[in-house]
Amino acid sequence: MRSEELRETLLPKRLALPIFASDPLSSVAYATQEILLVLTLGGLAYLHLTGWIAAAVAVLLAVVVLSYRQVVGAYPSGGGSFEVVTTNLGPSAGLVVAASLLVDYVMTVAVSVASGVDNIISALPGLAPYRVLLALVFVALLAAVNLRGVRESGRAFAAPTYLFIGGILITVATGLLRYAFGTAPRAESAAFGITPTPGDAQLAGLALLMLVLRAFSQGCTALTGVEAISNGVPAFRRPKSRNAATTLAVMGGTAIAMFVGVTALALVSEVHITQDPCRLTGLPGSCGSYTQRTVIAQIAAAVLGGEHSIGFYFIQTVTALILVLAANTAFNGFPLLGSILAQHRYLPHQLHNRGDRLAFSNGILALALVAALLLYAYQAQVNQLIHLYILGVFTSFTLSQLGMVRHWNRQLRAAEGSLTDREGRRRIHLARAVNGTGAVITGLVLLIVLATKFLEGAWLAVLAAIVLWVTMRGIRRHYDAVSEELAVTDPRAELVPPSRVIAMVLVSSLLKPTLRAVAYAHAFHPDRLEALTVAVDREEAAQLRDQWEEFGIDVPLTVLDSPYREVTRPIIERVRSERRDSPRDVVAVFIPEYVVGHWWENVLHNQSALWLKSRLLFTPGVMVISVPWQLSSSSAANHPLARAPGSVRRGEPPHSGPPPS
Amino acid sequence: MRSEELRETLLPKRLALPIFASDPLSSVAYATQEILLVLTLGGLAYLHLTGWIAAAVAVLLAVVVLSYRQVVGAYPSGGGSFEVVTTNLGPSAGLVVAASLLVDYVMTVAVSVASGVDNIISALPGLAPYRVLLALVFVALLAAVNLRGVRESGRAFAAPTYLFIGGILITVATGLLRYAFGTAPRAESAAFGITPTPGDAQLAGLALLMLVLRAFSQGCTALTGVEAISNGVPAFRRPKSRNAATTLAVMGGTAIAMFVGVTALALVSEVHITQDPCRLTGLPGSCGSYTQRTVIAQIAAAVLGGEHSIGFYFIQTVTALILVLAANTAFNGFPLLGSILAQHRYLPHQLHNRGDRLAFSNGILALALVAALLLYAYQAQVNQLIHLYILGVFTSFTLSQLGMVRHWNRQLRAAEGSLTDREGRRRIHLARAVNGTGAVITGLVLLIVLATKFLEGAWLAVLAAIVLWVTMRGIRRHYDAVSEELAVTDPRAELVPPSRVIAMVLVSSLLKPTLRAVAYAHAFHPDRLEALTVAVDREEAAQLRDQWEEFGIDVPLTVLDSPYREVTRPIIERVRSERRDSPRDVVAVFIPEYVVGHWWENVLHNQSALWLKSRLLFTPGVMVISVPWQLSSSSAANHPLARAPGSVRRGEPPHSGPPPS
Repeated sequence: MRSEELRETLLPKRLALPIFASDPLSSVAYATQEILLVLTLGGLAYLHLTGWIAAAVAVLLAVVVLSYRQVVGAYPSGGGSFEVVTTNLGPSAGLVVAASLLVDYVMTVAVSVASGVDNIISALPGLAPYRVLLALVFVALLAAVNLRGVRESGRAFAAPTYLFIGGILITVATGLLRYAFGTAPRAESAAFGITPTPGDAQLAGLALLMLVLRAFSQGCTALTGVEAISNGVPAFRRPKSRNAATTLAVMGGTAIAMFVGVTALALVSEVHITQDPCRLTGLPGSCGSYTQRTVIAQIAAAVLGGEHSIGFYFIQTVTALILVLAANTAFNGFPLLGSILAQHRYLPHQLHNRGDRLAFSNGILALALVAALLLYAYQAQVNQLIHLYILGVFTSFTLSQLGMVRHWNRQLRAAEGSLTDREGRRRIHLARAVNGTGAVITGLVLLIVLATKFLEGAWLAVLAAIVLWVTMRGIRRHYDAVSEELAVTDPRAELVPPSRVIAMVLVSSLLKPTLRAVAYAHAFHPDRLEALTVAVDREEAAQLRDQWEEFGIDVPLTVLDSPYREVTRPIIERVRSERRDSPRDVVAVFIPEYVVGHWWENVLHNQSALWLKSRLLFTPGVMVISVPWQLSSSSAANHPLARAPGSVRRGEPPHSGPPPS
Repeated sequence: MRSEELRETLLPKRLALPIFASDPLSSVAYATQEILLVLTLGGLAYLHLTGWIAAAVAVLLAVVVLSYRQVVGAYPSGGGSFEVVTTNLGPSAGLVVAASLLVDYVMTVAVSVASGVDNIISALPGLAPYRVLLALVFVALLAAVNLRGVRESGRAFAAPTYLFIGGILITVATGLLRYAFGTAPRAESAAFGITPTPGDAQLAGLALLMLVLRAFSQGCTALTGVEAISNGVPAFRRPKSRNAATTLAVMGGTAIAMFVGVTALALVSEVHITQDPCRLTGLPGSCGSYTQRTVIAQIAAAVLGGEHSIGFYFIQTVTALILVLAANTAFNGFPLLGSILAQHRYLPHQLHNRGDRLAFSNGILALALVAALLLYAYQAQVNQLIHLYILGVFTSFTLSQLGMVRHWNRQLRAAEGSLTDREGRRRIHLARAVNGTGAVITGLVLLIVLATKFLEGAWLAVLAAIVLWVTMRGIRRHYDAVSEELAVTDPRAELVPPSRVIAMVLVSSLLKPTLRAVAYAHAFHPDRLEALTVAVDREEAAQLRDQWEEFGIDVPLTVLDSPYREVTRPIIERVRSERRDSPRDVVAVFIPEYVVGHWWENVLHNQSALWLKSRLLFTPGVMVISVPWQLSSSSAANHPLARAPGSVRRGEPPHSGPPPS
């Protein structure tokens, strides 16, 4: 796409909702289930607490949505939490948000894919042995699709998202209506009992509170992805902020309705689900051969006519689809965040430019690789992976709400001097109250999540975020140091040319490329020109000298002695001694090189030339001049313009905002 | 070491013997055992055939030693079988020998290390669970020692080799004397019975013959390493050939005496050893917990006073030592053969030069890696690994004896014309008869080995040799094609300089390195000089242009448009269009580069410059000029002459005989 065209693809609300909401809405597919899995550690005794926990999560969701509506209004540029926090709390805090979000993008892929596979297996239990394989195949497919550079079109997202929303809401409504009329649907697991795990039977006091907090932590996964819209404001049609805020509200309302509905229906239809199927009692067969279906699958089957009904398959299909789409949003968000971080010089600047395909490729491959590793390590178990999730989300929530509070404080201070508009000040006060409340609540949740999940796996996510934070700070410092070192203070002084040019042609054999290098060196009319060879083998060197004279080349050939059979050292020493004698000269070293057509041919050629070049570049006052000779194999295989434009562009390397450096 | 010093380290016979004989003599440690392991497949019934098989092996050994004495006399240059076969049967046959030997060097390491570990475990049975680990540690140690470049000193080899020879011969003599006096030593396994495997009980006719042939094939491992001396003739003191032939005879005699002695003693002391300890009957405990000792260990314990006697530990120590030394010879031979092959342009020519440490490193690492893989895959079981062995040895034996026959035929024909010396012709006829016999016998053995071992694992060795052969031929063809393409036919035409030099300085930012590149380009006084930048971002390009004028740089700056945000393509197109307008010009592209001190810094810089350079090299009529700017981090870390000389030389890259190309 040409740069101009990029600007003309703005989104109407009806397409923006599915694009940005697939991630937050998809968490409905596992949030309820995660709450139940913790509560049933104590058997069936604590299931009545589910409602209260779900209510708390719903309130939290509302608070966060309200808070982010403020962000969208105040920061329409799409920097999201990273921008808000960097602007208001400083770059170090901003970097914490960035590191957390990078980790959470990885977890979004891992958890969504694992949950998607879970729902596929719920529909087709025969696939249970291939859980990990299926998950890895999905990650590979997502990576492949994104590497091909297919931009997500609103339409591709719209259908599955709306079908998922519609399907779930109809299922919930039907189920609850049946309950109201006294014919409540019954889940397939309703008849099973659950044996409590030894430590979790008959809890009371603090122990019960801990169980409830753990269940609440797990339920908070319903909040993932909420902030996606705040990163996407620039993609909305005008008025951007207003449209984004509206979409955020619609998304929040839908998410709450779906989450509460699914949870209510799960309670009503008595879904009994547990981390270990062997704790189920009343199973028809052995627990080893029994595959528990997901909560979504169980309620869909109960409401829509059993696990072979069309309705059931439909719900499972759209659920799996939306989960894969949620993973796909991470494949878009991760490289985009990487590009913003590169622009701020926290990551290698090759990642900066938007149109640069290879840059995206690196990000996509990194994301796919880490997600695949996690899926493999945790055997694609949602319940295991979820422990590493949402820490980053809540870190980012908390810090951005704190940042917003500071933002409003600054606004108030600015208003004090110039404005007496009471209405305006009242609105700022209200906004600050909203964000303050958000900060306190999400901060509290962050502490709860950290406390309940740290030992269960969250330490790994924390560690990864810390490593990222330290690395990105180091990269930024490096770039800053280099910029300072290279800044031009006196252009005239830098532009003074060297007093003389001494040219040296390196000779190893008397083949065509060497003669070409001599001819090119002549064309420059250097102040002095000599040919250099290293006598690794004295006989060969003598032969070379004879041949040199025989060819009648009018350039003196110097044979450097090399008692230790080295090549590089004598040449470097020669160049240095030249510079030592006259430091204001520059030494131009001409190196004849073969250019070959196949990568493996490089193993057979140019090894010493490459090494020598890299050593020469460390020597001050030297220019290294490659004189290429294109072997016939090179022209067919590697003619850069002979390829189709697409394939060349795909081969294009990362580049730093401004061209080569 | 200086080249001159290399020539002054010639070996007297008493040091040459241990250096070259550790490999052939060490096979005494497993050859007898391998014969027994096959025969006991049929229980104890066929053990009486051991003597005949051992006798056949001993005769074979004598034949091969006699044959190689001829090789040593006729080809004193140390090329060994490879040279003999290449000279007499042509390069393709020579390459077969080379490929076979490369495979066998790998197997020497694997088998010797596995057998060494076996003998250590025989002395310290508690180490049995760590068999594979121990083997891998030994390979790693050997690789490390050889990477450090410690040359094997004759003295280091002398002690263990002579101690091993002495120890085994004393044990054999003592044991056989005791037998003669009626107090035969009794092995710990003498009382055990052996259950035949189902297919191998009561064999007769062809089936029995096959068993015997299989046992014979295994026994032929006693012949490995015999040809080492023929590769080492140049290392002997003068008269080289005579000394080498004498050493070969001494080595052959010793090997036969030891092998026959050990086999006789094993029979006399009734060593009952089997591939699967669970086929042993009369075991004190369960077969799972019983570790069979090696044949050497069993006879040493029987003769020298049990498995806790000093004599026993002594024999096990020297046996393990000589086996490790045998593996070490492969670590010397493999890179040496690689270097000879590289000299003949069958392998990348970086491997050619002797003094080049990194070249040896590559060979050493490759050898260690493949041997370690085999040891791991076959769980360091000698009995498994042995099936891949000796095919190469016998291929090389057969072909080199055939080559010698041809050599003598040629001598005879030459003699016919000029010489009437009957004595001389008689000697040539005799030599031809010796080598002819050798060729027929080793050829027969090769067929037997191939037939009995192919399906048991030898196919892998055959496949590896074929792959090597094809690869080496391909490399040779490539080098030949390139040489032909690059040969100079008309030096004057090649030396005509281009008519004009067009210089272009690539600019991405206005930092010091760019100004230096401009200054250097000025110094060359090109016919035209311009600066180029690519407008990936229009705003940034405009800023750059303003700054350019502000700095007062007297070179025109051309801004190339890049609607697809590419960097490389607009520059390449610009260079090509320049050449299209005036094909006799040369375009000199100046690229400012940062030189950084740490490898990871390269991730942060120069990526686009590197890519661009590699693409430019494919464009005819272009010179690529790197103008390096040494960042402060580079001077400390990478000053090539600031390091200790040793560390610089270790870092020296592979180079082709003559210096850089």
